[in-house]
Amino acid sequence: MTQRVCFQLRINPDLADEYKERHANVWPEMLSALSETGWRNYSLFLGSDGLLTGYLECDDFETSVRRMGETAINEKWQASMAKFFVGLDGGAPDGAMAPLEEVFHLD
Amino acid sequence: MTQRVCFQLRINPDLADEYKERHANVWPEMLSALSETGWRNYSLFLGSDGLLTGYLECDDFETSVRRMGETAINEKWQASMAKFFVGLDGGAPDGAMAPLEEVFHLD
Repeated sequence: MTQRVCFQLRINPDLADEYKERHANVWPEMLSALSETGWRNYSLFLGSDGLLTGYLECDDFETSVRRMGETAINEKWQASMAKFFVGLDGGAPDGAMAPLEEVFHLD
Repeated sequence: MTQRVCFQLRINPDLADEYKERHANVWPEMLSALSETGWRNYSLFLGSDGLLTGYLECDDFETSVRRMGETAINEKWQASMAKFFVGLDGGAPDGAMAPLEEVFHLD
């Protein structure tokens, strides 16, 4: 069964251009690790205020987050991304991906 | 080609329960009209602060919004939903669905 997940994070809007540039060139090893740990149809959308919305499909989000968190490449990626995020109280962004409640779906 | 769209609206969080109830029972004619006007894999996610995030796939979002806006059932639905939305300056919610910028995608 497919689980659809939407989560929100916040980046510093002053760094939006650099954030976009980095995400236009995500390391191939990072992309492979995401696929291998079950992240499918994964998109990130950025608002002008810095609100970042993620959408993905997976079998089980908790499992995919945990498995991704166990990869060495993710640790490197998150460390290199830490400066963009605000309001995370020093925690890693991937630990702050609380899924929103799905209230409607139409295939 | 598939366009992935993410948009955000805001509802009154005091009415969240009623909003969810309505969306658990969307009129069948409304669902058919969405499908017929090209709305695919369409989900709505609701945050506790009332921020509503929509995600869908379509061929062309502007066309799908316009075609949906021409249906009689949509007019009835939007009128019945108007009370939930805040910050729309009196406009219809479907006219305020400004797509966010997609900054990353992995199939």
